[in-house]
Amino acid sequence: MANSRFEYVKDFEQPDGLLPNTWIVVRIDGRGFHKLSNHYQFIKPNDRRALDLMNAAAVEVMKELPDLCIAYGVSDEFSFVFHPSCQLFERRNAKIVTTIVSTFTAYYIHKWAEFFPSTPLKPPYLPSFDGRAVIYPSSAILRDYMSWRQVDCHINNLYNTTFWTMVQQGGMSNTDAEQELKGTVSSDKNEILFKRFGINYNNEEEIYKKGSVLYRQFELQEPKVAQSEEEGSAVPQAETSRSQQDKLKRLRRKAQVVVDHIDIIKDDFWLRRPWILSGKPGKLPGVPA
Amino acid sequence: MANSRFEYVKDFEQPDGLLPNTWIVVRIDGRGFHKLSNHYQFIKPNDRRALDLMNAAAVEVMKELPDLCIAYGVSDEFSFVFHPSCQLFERRNAKIVTTIVSTFTAYYIHKWAEFFPSTPLKPPYLPSFDGRAVIYPSSAILRDYMSWRQVDCHINNLYNTTFWTMVQQGGMSNTDAEQELKGTVSSDKNEILFKRFGINYNNEEEIYKKGSVLYRQFELQEPKVAQSEEEGSAVPQAETSRSQQDKLKRLRRKAQVVVDHIDIIKDDFWLRRPWILSGKPGKLPGVPA
Amino acid sequence: MANSRFEYVKDFEQPDGLLPNTWIVVRIDGRGFHKLSNHYQFIKPNDRRALDLMNAAAVEVMKELPDLCIAYGVSDEFSFVFHPSCQLFERRNAKIVTTIVSTFTAYYIHKWAEFFPSTPLKPPYLPSFDGRAVIYPSSAILRDYMSWRQVDCHINNLYNTTFWTMVQQGGMSNTDAEQELKGTVSSDKNEILFKRFGINYNNEEEIYKKGSVLYRQFELQEPKVAQSEEEGSAVPQAETSRSQQDKLKRLRRKAQVVVDHIDIIKDDFWLRRPWILSGKPGKLPGVPA
Amino acid sequence: MANSRFEYVKDFEQPDGLLPNTWIVVRIDGRGFHKLSNHYQFIKPNDRRALDLMNAAAVEVMKELPDLCIAYGVSDEFSFVFHPSCQLFERRNAKIVTTIVSTFTAYYIHKWAEFFPSTPLKPPYLPSFDGRAVIYPSSAILRDYMSWRQVDCHINNLYNTTFWTMVQQGGMSNTDAEQELKGTVSSDKNEILFKRFGINYNNEEEIYKKGSVLYRQFELQEPKVAQSEEEGSAVPQAETSRSQQDKLKRLRRKAQVVVDHIDIIKDDFWLRRPWILSGKPGKLPGVPA
Repeated sequence: MANSRFEYVKDFEQPDGLLPNTWIVVRIDGRGFHKLSNHYQFIKPNDRRALDLMNAAAVEVMKELPDLCIAYGVSDEFSFVFHPSCQLFERRNAKIVTTIVSTFTAYYIHKWAEFFPSTPLKPPYLPSFDGRAVIYPSSAILRDYMSWRQVDCHINNLYNTTFWTMVQQGGMSNTDAEQELKGTVSSDKNEILFKRFGINYNNEEEIYKKGSVLYRQFELQEPKVAQSEEEGSAVPQAETSRSQQDKLKRLRRKAQVVVDHIDIIKDDFWLRRPWILSGKPGKLPGVPA
Repeated sequence: MANSRFEYVKDFEQPDGLLPNTWIVVRIDGRGFHKLSNHYQFIKPNDRRALDLMNAAAVEVMKELPDLCIAYGVSDEFSFVFHPSCQLFERRNAKIVTTIVSTFTAYYIHKWAEFFPSTPLKPPYLPSFDGRAVIYPSSAILRDYMSWRQVDCHINNLYNTTFWTMVQQGGMSNTDAEQELKGTVSSDKNEILFKRFGINYNNEEEIYKKGSVLYRQFELQEPKVAQSEEEGSAVPQAETSRSQQDKLKRLRRKAQVVVDHIDIIKDDFWLRRPWILSGKPGKLPGVPA
Repeated sequence: MANSRFEYVKDFEQPDGLLPNTWIVVRIDGRGFHKLSNHYQFIKPNDRRALDLMNAAAVEVMKELPDLCIAYGVSDEFSFVFHPSCQLFERRNAKIVTTIVSTFTAYYIHKWAEFFPSTPLKPPYLPSFDGRAVIYPSSAILRDYMSWRQVDCHINNLYNTTFWTMVQQGGMSNTDAEQELKGTVSSDKNEILFKRFGINYNNEEEIYKKGSVLYRQFELQEPKVAQSEEEGSAVPQAETSRSQQDKLKRLRRKAQVVVDHIDIIKDDFWLRRPWILSGKPGKLPGVPA
Repeated sequence: MANSRFEYVKDFEQPDGLLPNTWIVVRIDGRGFHKLSNHYQFIKPNDRRALDLMNAAAVEVMKELPDLCIAYGVSDEFSFVFHPSCQLFERRNAKIVTTIVSTFTAYYIHKWAEFFPSTPLKPPYLPSFDGRAVIYPSSAILRDYMSWRQVDCHINNLYNTTFWTMVQQGGMSNTDAEQELKGTVSSDKNEILFKRFGINYNNEEEIYKKGSVLYRQFELQEPKVAQSEEEGSAVPQAETSRSQQDKLKRLRRKAQVVVDHIDIIKDDFWLRRPWILSGKPGKLPGVPA
């Protein structure tokens, strides 16, 4: 019994390869995490266990997909970044996005008990994530994307820290706190925190203020004045032979994935870790060249 | 601190709405399940626990997304079907696909211990799934898609049943069994099973031969001669008011999701359950009209 | 000297095949025709020469592309329709759209002198057209598309006829006429025409009221009660063999392309010309079967 | 009579905006020009009138669309290039491609008589063109695209020149010439031309060997060592205000569009005309700063 009579339905599958030589960012978001965080009584404004769980799941995604060169997480969202030279799954959009979303979900669920030992998961409140891929044509724009997320982290965290301090320590109602914060700028919030509650926002934990940056650890380099970048160089991807690519992949697998809470808006982070933008693994720390 | 300087990066997100008035099929597949099924020692050719776990996860997906009208599972794959009138997430491709993949993964991991109590999951062997959406312009083609999967189920199951019987009961090596089966047709395999091992393939369990069909249970109807179908009728979706849509959604939620192992290639299945293709919920069983 | 070093740039061309088994409508529009029609002093509200030129160019497009089954024109726009079974250029979007736009433009320019003998074209006022393809999943929706264009034709023509009569015969300024027509409905405009100017809108020429319908002429059929339509039938396109397709193409080429001004909103037009929606050429008029 | 009942069909139009900040290349090709060039008896291997007509039409396209920064033509094809900062038609694919194809076709037909005064166009042999847009993420890759076309020009022209010399001057049959050239490399063809026919390929006309490069003429600059390029800089396009954009557009309109036959593979061309890759108009020649 051949299947040929029905096989024509495969023709309806449309190709979805992402444009070559562009940065691929897959951003995933928790679905209904507002409700979920209430249900499992996440601590406000930041639940360290929840963030550590996010990071733990993201580290596993990075380890499973050596093509990933950096990831950035804040709150219930995570951005995973592939280098322009990435050929994973022939750059098929759905394949890339669903693999990340599913792997992340699997680890998030599997590791839940490790981070919330006394709060078991209970359907229908199972955490899940949606995601999408966006491509960026240059390193400069990719960096602006990363900056966008980190600025967002800062804006939201300053707001949430002030709001919840007013509510939790100041005894205000949610509505009153919200009302008072309407229209304020950063300096206003800093002042509220400091004058009323003696809190210096600068002393808050870095993970809350900066979010979490994940990358593979090679030896840091002295920041140099930007050497004429090779960006967008026209070297065809095919040129990097498969065996060469496999070698790079092995090197990446060997590097440790670290979780950092650090400024990624200024140049310093990128200049010291040139392997992230170049896509070429650096020297493993402690390994003689 | 406004975020405006970097917000332009949002312009790179490209719209991915699926064509209106078409059937949406999201097919998900286990990633690396060949290796995984060896690692967790799935029974060959069919591991009932694994299939039941797939179905249990799929039932939860159906319950969480009342827009789904039917799903079909076989082996480590599942197809979820949305009606042409579906407006979920404004029909955004990535949002729909990742929601299904993530929800399915979450339940699969969460329920694993229920179906494999003595085989705990152990990273890096965490199950995960990829997926993609395909759209079909007519009910006839959607049915051909479903038939395609069920025929595939049959072809693969007959092969696997024969192959593993030859190996497990006949003591053949994998290579020898594979060699002998090369080029055989269905009747040859039936004969091998029957003559050598006394197995009548027809008596195999339906879940293995037919796969699993999931749908919402309303009162079955007498199959009528196909009334001039309304398919593809030009009634604009907006016409179905939001309140009307919400009412339909509630009705669907009330219906039980059943797991059936039944022929979906012939007309009978569809004629008796007209609500699947029409998208209009039927009468709840046992509830007076 | 091989070209291989640069050939990788071809990988950036992304596939753009239109979903199989759907109606393809290519709608083209005159670019800047408001300005252009002033420059060449087109008669208001309708310039018969300009419409005849549009139709003449569209007839040539139909003749050059036998895959086209119907076209509809009004003002400076034309919609060209391909049947769901169409395989032209492997249904590549850009190829289909640009071929139609370019062929139409070529004939429009070439035939200009025939319709405007005393008004030669003069750069930079050269007519040109833009276009886009839209796909529709069912005949019912395709018919709604066609109805949409014809209703638009009616609405615009009634407005324009009334407006220009008020200006040209009533001596009103453009602004005053516009002002008075603001917020009026069809019956108001009919009344203005009739009471003030003795014009019965129903007696206006059909080409202005109905637009222009182009199709291949086969023998008309008695309208029957809609036989259970085969629409969307799952017959794979590949099934229609290439030789069979070539035969159909020859038949279509033999049929005369006619220009009609007729209602295409009601059923009658389509029932009498079943070959348009079925995609199967009828009997050539006057040719014994 | 409102049109609302049918207007839902507009929802089937899908957005087709091209990724921001990428180079857009629209390449158009003559349809069936092999047959057409025979019909109108184009001179082999190169018909100067036909090339001049192509260039004349392309110049008009450049003049009508000041957003275009360079174009390259060879044989019956032309590539038109928009800068990454281009916002024309909100970067809608179909709109951009069809506008270029239609404008080009209009001028090609309109100017035909000027270049072929004694060979009037005669349907159904009307020239037409198809086209497609491709996007490239960096200047380096854009330059590789341009190099690809110019290398192709060289390869084809050397072949055609040798082939037609063997046929026209050497009295060989087409088949014999084709046979002899099979497998030859550039030096072989050069030798055939020189040894048998005394032709030094280097002395052939530049337009045949290099194709035609169209760009706006500003004052040439001394080639400098590539200053750290700003390419892909993250300056959001919106930043360039509309009034600023209009000013640039006016400057571009003032510049003369020149037709050059010159190497565009090496750096020199681009370094001397930095306005092409930068998108910033230079100084008009002969105009005091």
